[in-house]
Amino acid sequence: MSETRRPHSGSPSLLRLINSVAVLSALRESSPATLSDLATRTGLSRPTVESAVEDLVEQGWAAELAAEADQRGGRRVGRPARRYVFRADSGYVLGLDIGAHRVLGVLADLNGEPVHTHQTRVDPRLDADARIAVVRGVANRCLAEGGIDRRRLMAAGVGSPGIIDRAGTVTVSTVLPGWVGLPLARRLSRSFGCPVLVDNDANLAALAERWHGVATQADSLVYLLVGRRIGAALVLDGKVHRGFGGAAGEIGLLDPKKWELCRERLLGPATTASIDDRDHQVTEQIIASARAGDSAALSIVDDFCAVLAQHAAAMTLTVDPEMVVLGGGLASADDLLLPRLQQHIDRVCIRSPRILASSVGEEAVVLGAVRLALQAADEALHQRARSSITARGSGG
Amino acid sequence: MSETRRPHSGSPSLLRLINSVAVLSALRESSPATLSDLATRTGLSRPTVESAVEDLVEQGWAAELAAEADQRGGRRVGRPARRYVFRADSGYVLGLDIGAHRVLGVLADLNGEPVHTHQTRVDPRLDADARIAVVRGVANRCLAEGGIDRRRLMAAGVGSPGIIDRAGTVTVSTVLPGWVGLPLARRLSRSFGCPVLVDNDANLAALAERWHGVATQADSLVYLLVGRRIGAALVLDGKVHRGFGGAAGEIGLLDPKKWELCRERLLGPATTASIDDRDHQVTEQIIASARAGDSAALSIVDDFCAVLAQHAAAMTLTVDPEMVVLGGGLASADDLLLPRLQQHIDRVCIRSPRILASSVGEEAVVLGAVRLALQAADEALHQRARSSITARGSGG
Repeated sequence: MSETRRPHSGSPSLLRLINSVAVLSALRESSPATLSDLATRTGLSRPTVESAVEDLVEQGWAAELAAEADQRGGRRVGRPARRYVFRADSGYVLGLDIGAHRVLGVLADLNGEPVHTHQTRVDPRLDADARIAVVRGVANRCLAEGGIDRRRLMAAGVGSPGIIDRAGTVTVSTVLPGWVGLPLARRLSRSFGCPVLVDNDANLAALAERWHGVATQADSLVYLLVGRRIGAALVLDGKVHRGFGGAAGEIGLLDPKKWELCRERLLGPATTASIDDRDHQVTEQIIASARAGDSAALSIVDDFCAVLAQHAAAMTLTVDPEMVVLGGGLASADDLLLPRLQQHIDRVCIRSPRILASSVGEEAVVLGAVRLALQAADEALHQRARSSITARGSGG
Repeated sequence: MSETRRPHSGSPSLLRLINSVAVLSALRESSPATLSDLATRTGLSRPTVESAVEDLVEQGWAAELAAEADQRGGRRVGRPARRYVFRADSGYVLGLDIGAHRVLGVLADLNGEPVHTHQTRVDPRLDADARIAVVRGVANRCLAEGGIDRRRLMAAGVGSPGIIDRAGTVTVSTVLPGWVGLPLARRLSRSFGCPVLVDNDANLAALAERWHGVATQADSLVYLLVGRRIGAALVLDGKVHRGFGGAAGEIGLLDPKKWELCRERLLGPATTASIDDRDHQVTEQIIASARAGDSAALSIVDDFCAVLAQHAAAMTLTVDPEMVVLGGGLASADDLLLPRLQQHIDRVCIRSPRILASSVGEEAVVLGAVRLALQAADEALHQRARSSITARGSGG
C-alpha cells in the first residue's frame, strides 16, 4: 500500500496544473486506468485525481472508456469502475529515415502506433535541395493518406547518415551529396511547423532496439548497423551516447582501407549511381552460397566478420557493454555472422558481451526517429497541458 | 533573488531532519557562510536555518567561526554576522593506491585536505596476503601519525590494477600475484571497520583529474595512465564509466603484441623481480636523449606514441570525448608526447579532442581514492546526521 501524498499547496491553478500533469503522466504510462489506479500511482487523493481527470478529458488529453468495454464476463456487483485512457490521437508525430536510396516516413500517434507509412525511392546522386523536397513529399503523403491535419503534428524525428551536431546540422557526411553544413533540423522544422530533432541513423537504430528490440532490458550496448553502409552507435546508462561533437561510434575510421575492402566484397560500394538493387542481390547471393558451403563465399564472409569484429572489439574494450547488437540488412544473416563475431570478440576481449541480432528489422532507423519525436512530443504535451490548464485555472 | 521555500510540513522531527540535512549540504559546498547565506542557498526561512544550524553545531557537524576571524578591516557597523563552517574534522577518509612496487596511503579530512601521507615500497612478487598486510600497515601508520582514532574513519577508497567488479572483488589482474578472485573491499572493510570502495587505478586517476586536474570542466574524457604499466579510463556525463563488468578502458588488448613491444622499449617490463628504480632510470635516459635529438631515442618515442595514439584513437572514435588526458609518470614528458599523439589522432579522427597532460601528478590514483572515499563519507554523513537528529527529535 502506498501512502497518500498530500496535494501540493499553492495557488489553485498551480495546484491543479501540477496534479493534472502528474495524472497525465500516469495515464500515459499505463492505460486504461481507473481513478483508484491513478490515485495509487500518483499518490494523490481520489477527489484530487477525479478533478484532474475531468480537466484532462475537457482538454482532450484523456477519454473515458465506454461502459461496454468494461464488461469482461463475470458477475457485476454495482456500477463498474469508470476507466480512462490517454488519448493517443490528441497529437501525432512523424519519423523519417533519409537514406541514399530511399526516404521512409512513418506517421504515428502519441503511443507510437503507426498510422501511415510511405516510402519513396531516390537517386543516390540527388542534391540536398532535391532530397529535402522528397522528404517534404513523403511527410505530406503520410499526413494526407493518414487523414491527419498538419496542425496536429507535435514533433518530427529524422535519421540521416553522417555526423549531426546538437542543433541538428550535418557536420560530416560522405554518403549524401551536398549534405555537409546543412541545417537539417531548422529547414525541416520550417516546413513541418513543429519541433524537428535530427540524429545519426545508427544512433536512432540503437534507440529503436532499446525501445522495441532485443535490448529493452539492457542499460549499455554497442550497436552495429550493417547494411549497404555501416555505422555504429552506443547506448550507455540507458541513453544513446552521441559524444561531444555527435561523432561517437565512428569506429569505421580506425582502419579505413581494410574496412572498405572487406565491406565492398560483401556489400558492394557504399553509394552507387543507380537506384536498382543489383548490389543487394550480389550480397544475397554470397550469403546463400556461404550457407551452402561454397568456400569462396565463406572466405568473403570470414574476412568481413574478422574486420567487423575488430571494430566491434575496439568499441567493446572501450566501454565494456552488456551486449553487442547486429542490426541493419545483414542482421538476417545472423546464422553466419553471429558465431564468427562472437569467436573473434571472445578471443580479444577480457569480458565478452553477448552478441545478438536485432529484432527490429530494416525499419529500425525510422522507428528510432518516431521514438525521438515522441520524446519531443512529451515535452510539448506537458507544455500544452500546463498552458491550457493554467489559462483555464486563472479564468475560473 | 530566490523565492523563500516553505519548510516541509510533517512531524517535527522529520521536518528538522530534512532542513538540517539541506543546511549541512549547503555548508559543505561553501564555508564559511552566514545564516543569511544559508537561507538564500537552501530557500529556507532564516529562523528555520538558525535552528538547523544549532542542531548541526550541537551534533558536531558545524562550528561557529570565532568573531575575530570576521574582522577584515573596514568600519564595523553593529554586531558582525555570525559565520559558520562545516567541521571537516568531524570525520576522516583514507585513500590507498596499491601498486606492484609501492602502497601509498593518504588520510584526509572531510574537505579532502590531506592530514597524513605514508608510502611503503614493496616487492612486486609479494603474495596477496602479504600485500594486504602492507596495506593495513600503511593505513595504521596514516592514522597513528595523523593522530586520528580509527573510529573516526568514515570510509576508505582503494585503487588497484586490474578489473574490479561492483562488489569490490578483483576479477582480472595480470600485475599483482594472487590478486584474481580477491574480495578486496570486503577484506579491507573488515580491517578498517568502515565502508571500503575499490576501483581500478586508471579509473581513480581519471576521477582525480576531474576533481582537481585539467578536466574539472570536462563532461567527457579519455584518460591514459602511462607509467610502468598502462591503463585507460573514461569519464562520460561527468562520471567515471566503469562498464558492465568493470572492464571499460581495457583497450590495451586491441593489439597486445605491438603494444607490449613498444611499451617495453620505452618503459621496461610491466613487473620486475626487483624493487629498485633501474627501469625508471632507463626511461628517463631515453626521454632525455630524445629531447637532445638522439635519433635512436626519438625512434623509440615515435613508435611508442604511434601505438599509444592508435589505442587512444580507438577510444576516441568510440565515445567522441571532449578531451584526452595523458597522466601517469610519462605525463612529465608531455613536450615530446603530446604533439606526436595529437598528430596521429588528428589524422585518424573525424573530430579531434584536445590532448592535455595531467596536472595532478603521480599521486593521481591515491587522490582519486580519496575522492571515492569522500563520496561514501557523504552518504554516511547524511545517514548519521539523520539518525542523530531523528533520535534527538523523538526524545525532545
